[in-house]
Amino acid sequence: MIVDKLIDKIIRMDNPATIGIDTDFGYLPESMTKNVGTLKAAAAAILDFNKAVIDSVCDIAPSVKVQAAYYEQYGVEGMRVFAETLSYAKAKGLITIADIKRNDIGATAAAYSKAYLSGVEINGQRLKEYECDFVTINGYLGTDGLKPFVDDCVKYDKGMFVLVKTSNPSSGELQDRTVEASGKKVYEEMADIVAQLGKGNDGKHGYNRLGAVVGATYPRQAQELRAAMPNTFFLVPGYGAQGGTAEGLKVCFDDKGLGAVVNSSRGILCAYKADKYKGQDFCVAARNAAIDMRADLQAALSTVVR
Amino acid sequence: MIVDKLIDKIIRMDNPATIGIDTDFGYLPESMTKNVGTLKAAAAAILDFNKAVIDSVCDIAPSVKVQAAYYEQYGVEGMRVFAETLSYAKAKGLITIADIKRNDIGATAAAYSKAYLSGVEINGQRLKEYECDFVTINGYLGTDGLKPFVDDCVKYDKGMFVLVKTSNPSSGELQDRTVEASGKKVYEEMADIVAQLGKGNDGKHGYNRLGAVVGATYPRQAQELRAAMPNTFFLVPGYGAQGGTAEGLKVCFDDKGLGAVVNSSRGILCAYKADKYKGQDFCVAARNAAIDMRADLQAALSTVVR
Repeated sequence: MIVDKLIDKIIRMDNPATIGIDTDFGYLPESMTKNVGTLKAAAAAILDFNKAVIDSVCDIAPSVKVQAAYYEQYGVEGMRVFAETLSYAKAKGLITIADIKRNDIGATAAAYSKAYLSGVEINGQRLKEYECDFVTINGYLGTDGLKPFVDDCVKYDKGMFVLVKTSNPSSGELQDRTVEASGKKVYEEMADIVAQLGKGNDGKHGYNRLGAVVGATYPRQAQELRAAMPNTFFLVPGYGAQGGTAEGLKVCFDDKGLGAVVNSSRGILCAYKADKYKGQDFCVAARNAAIDMRADLQAALSTVVR
Repeated sequence: MIVDKLIDKIIRMDNPATIGIDTDFGYLPESMTKNVGTLKAAAAAILDFNKAVIDSVCDIAPSVKVQAAYYEQYGVEGMRVFAETLSYAKAKGLITIADIKRNDIGATAAAYSKAYLSGVEINGQRLKEYECDFVTINGYLGTDGLKPFVDDCVKYDKGMFVLVKTSNPSSGELQDRTVEASGKKVYEEMADIVAQLGKGNDGKHGYNRLGAVVGATYPRQAQELRAAMPNTFFLVPGYGAQGGTAEGLKVCFDDKGLGAVVNSSRGILCAYKADKYKGQDFCVAARNAAIDMRADLQAALSTVVR
């Protein structure tokens, strides 16, 4: 069961980090970008960069999160690099999260689910190009936009994270409104939908396949959600560049120090541009930043475990 | 201004329809699918089908909506056909809506906006592969997930439709909850965010670049939204296969019979499988279904215009 596999790996590596391979062309060192003049060449340079970063962190962190947006902007060849980055990370033994935040009405959601989880049927063969263990999903359309993904997760041993409380400054505009009938916030209503849909599929660590995205930038809400959805695994963005701290996000974990993966993207990919790692090659800096992040999370979580 | 351009074309062609080129491999006639065994060959067959449909309807309808999900499931070559379908439709003079329903936090939303609206900067050149006039966006993350798209719409003369009240059966689960402070539904709060962000950019017909997706399957809510957001252009899915009728959706229009485009996908693409068009070639059936849809919408709207 994929969530157990992820948690086992987190325990073995003593690290709940996921490395965000959200690579913008502007993150690459000048030596890799200077002769690039096409989308295809830009995408190829990004793949080289990604492979070097993955090589550098694959023995430090149990998983990577690859953000579709950064690849989509480089067109069709960007999507090829998105697929190749996922496959390369998998080949290196990493658990992979395709951060796609897709959603649509039922039949169309099913098409997205085929793209990432189950594959399409072509004259009796099941084919798929985007290989991943988890996807991220936007749940604004309700259950029938989520159900095709849930069904495929069960059938093909995959997992998913639904946006519940996002890490961005304006996330409260809609998500924090209080619903009259229940007295709950909109994000808590979303949490209820997720917890309800995920029910009954808990793995050996007590978590099921239907996870939630809960921003590290909102510790109070994260704490309430951790209590309200004890069987829901969290993907926690917002650490580092967005301002979330290890101390703040430890509320996303249970009393065994489990229950979440914490993402850092720019903090790792662009470490070589930071004062702390100045003068280091980008992949050395990425590795050192990943090691420092692990230590930071370990220190914060040591006070959680009872 | 792109919304004026769309409305002028709707008036000229006397047709507020948009043809949904949401092509699943299973929609193609057997003659086009029998020797197909790879994702690339499936994508190529879909492109042939799309071009024939576009040729058949480009003098009937002013615009097409191309649904990303159906292309993404065929992998990288599927995305190439997505791009080529958008470009082909544009070359045939159609206004194009890329139905992507993307969204993310600010910096990442900006990457999606670059993919579809503005292009990425590569060593001083601005490059882009997905050519479209409009995109669809999910607004669950609030203003800072929308702002990058809005800014690019203004800068590059593009438009966007934000999901407000979706057409699917479970759309009410979250969208219809009443917010305590305002007494409004969640979808009405979303409508307020959209109307507020779009303000001040109205074109000559009174509509601005920031439109809303409002399902034809919920006429009462559509009527209220039409009144609440008089300067917001609507993209109306749910006509035909999903059960929305011309009579029901006429509330999406203003008293000049303007203010919305109505999408039909399966009703056009799969017309050749319907009893009504049986025995016709798929592109003849698509053309006849598009003509029938136009007549249906014209008849309903003739009772709206005062």
